[in-house]
Amino acid sequence: MQPLRVTLGDRAYPIHIGAGLLDDVNMYAPYVASRSVAVITNKVVAPLYLERARRALEQAGARVFPVLIDDGEAAKDWASLDRVVDALLAARCGRDAIVVALGGGVVGDLAGFAAAVYQRGIAFIQVPTTLLAQVDSSVGGKTAINHARGKNMVGAFHQPLAVVADVATLDTLPDRELRAGLAEVIKHGFILDPQFVAWLEADLDKLLRRDRAALGHAVRRSCELKAQVVAADERETGLRAILNFGHTFGHAIEAGLGYGKWLHGEAVATGMVMASELSARAGMLSREDAERVRRLIARAGLPVQGPNLGIDRYLELMQVDKKASGGKVRFILLDGVGRAALRGDLDENLVRESIAAAVQ
Amino acid sequence: MQPLRVTLGDRAYPIHIGAGLLDDVNMYAPYVASRSVAVITNKVVAPLYLERARRALEQAGARVFPVLIDDGEAAKDWASLDRVVDALLAARCGRDAIVVALGGGVVGDLAGFAAAVYQRGIAFIQVPTTLLAQVDSSVGGKTAINHARGKNMVGAFHQPLAVVADVATLDTLPDRELRAGLAEVIKHGFILDPQFVAWLEADLDKLLRRDRAALGHAVRRSCELKAQVVAADERETGLRAILNFGHTFGHAIEAGLGYGKWLHGEAVATGMVMASELSARAGMLSREDAERVRRLIARAGLPVQGPNLGIDRYLELMQVDKKASGGKVRFILLDGVGRAALRGDLDENLVRESIAAAVQ
Repeated sequence: MQPLRVTLGDRAYPIHIGAGLLDDVNMYAPYVASRSVAVITNKVVAPLYLERARRALEQAGARVFPVLIDDGEAAKDWASLDRVVDALLAARCGRDAIVVALGGGVVGDLAGFAAAVYQRGIAFIQVPTTLLAQVDSSVGGKTAINHARGKNMVGAFHQPLAVVADVATLDTLPDRELRAGLAEVIKHGFILDPQFVAWLEADLDKLLRRDRAALGHAVRRSCELKAQVVAADERETGLRAILNFGHTFGHAIEAGLGYGKWLHGEAVATGMVMASELSARAGMLSREDAERVRRLIARAGLPVQGPNLGIDRYLELMQVDKKASGGKVRFILLDGVGRAALRGDLDENLVRESIAAAVQ
Repeated sequence: MQPLRVTLGDRAYPIHIGAGLLDDVNMYAPYVASRSVAVITNKVVAPLYLERARRALEQAGARVFPVLIDDGEAAKDWASLDRVVDALLAARCGRDAIVVALGGGVVGDLAGFAAAVYQRGIAFIQVPTTLLAQVDSSVGGKTAINHARGKNMVGAFHQPLAVVADVATLDTLPDRELRAGLAEVIKHGFILDPQFVAWLEADLDKLLRRDRAALGHAVRRSCELKAQVVAADERETGLRAILNFGHTFGHAIEAGLGYGKWLHGEAVATGMVMASELSARAGMLSREDAERVRRLIARAGLPVQGPNLGIDRYLELMQVDKKASGGKVRFILLDGVGRAALRGDLDENLVRESIAAAVQ
């Protein structure tokens, strides 16, 4: 099948989506011949897919070496970043080396950021192996690590050379992570595409059963929607902020509990429920439509209630979110199903009520 | 006087050069009104200039807070970077915050890199207070920190909003640092401008006496030359590499001794002597012209002989330099005074002889 394209001028790149692409030499051949290639992965993904990816890369002419990081959100830290940089230097990689991110969102964010800053920037390829990474984090060039004071606070915009999304890798994904990935799929529908929401409402059970055709469609449509937004606003100066629907609340949940307790997608799911509550209370979204958000998230087996951190703590954590501007938190809300809007002028009491309505 | 301009499309910016600009509110007024401004500086510069800069920034409408890092090359590390990020987060800085780098090359490189990666990139202003920073490191958008395995190995291209070079700050510069800055001035002449070399040969003593008019000319001409190169090749894919004349050998000296033993400019000075030796041995530069390089460097009070690290160690250290490509070291050589050339095909024996000719 034809790859999608993210149209970003001289930084344009293809997104390949299909079953069995991971070890298809054609995915890598245009980029890696005679290059040093660092495959960044983790201890969970490596036994499953490292050798297959390595073989394809070597067939494409690369000198391959793997770099293993820890599994989980806690690996997005200075220490892991230094480990990747150190491995690249130990292998005497110059600016013509290439980083391959083989894994989920954590691997992609960390490896992409390492590529962004190694010798002031080298090329990288995303090979996402989780649903969340395939539908969201591998597309768009956002890379980052976390800081104790906030998630993704240190990072760069750095577009990959290509994204290789092998949907067959979703076969080995734990249920909980599949559901977490669905959160971002659902998000793309509600902010941009009412037809896609309707399709999700009809076919969610197929996705939960891992019907490969349904997963392929969900990944492709999500990537299409995201790629359009990224092409219009690469560096998040405007429109792109809508992709953060559910994320302001979600980041507060993740930071409040300590990164890694909840999966990112789980926190975003609950964040979308809170943001829909806020949209309804602000008079932008009907009660029925807010209920459609909540119901689809619940059907996907995702949490619709946040942890009880205390409302003040939620507000404090949201203050340091990157979407805050001049100390004022800006929210992405729904102005109807399939239509997102940025609001920076909301009464704090509405925000408090919306959190209170969706905590345990 | 009219500022110079670095012509880089939507990333173009002015370089202001003159005495007394540090606390000129007009330097900051176009950028900082109602913004949070983190002034990154160190314990040596702060007592001299922090309050004056702070006052001007506040008059321009900024909310100012200082962040102090250690003095010296060792401060270009993960720990200092984390300290800056932590201070920005603690002050709840959003993406509209601005970083001001007040100090020499270390402060500029670190603060610029922190700005490049904080929340995936915020704006910054360079206020260089050393000759080296004014003539070289503050211009062109290269930012970085060091790694134990190599200098400037982690960084970004991130252009400032403006450069404010107050030549009056050179009054307080220690002699050794003034001389180190002259190394980069001399470099700009030898790679790009034979007239400027002739002027330096005639007026070097004025510069060493800190004649303000002479310093002003040296800073302006250096910035002009560098700005032309940067405008033609922002991300060092070609021409810009010539600015690294003397740096491949110089970085080996710095890394071999441990960063901070020699000043960067001192290492570059000796590196230029080695590179001129190599240019002569490769048949590109006359013996007299190689001697002009050596003599001007010696007259500036800069070292013309490198530390005796052992030739093998020099070669090993140069291998990890960013200018290495596919494991082969590329050298910037002189093809006559005022004309630089990139060579990646040199016999290792010539390199060995050139180092041997210029070590203690």
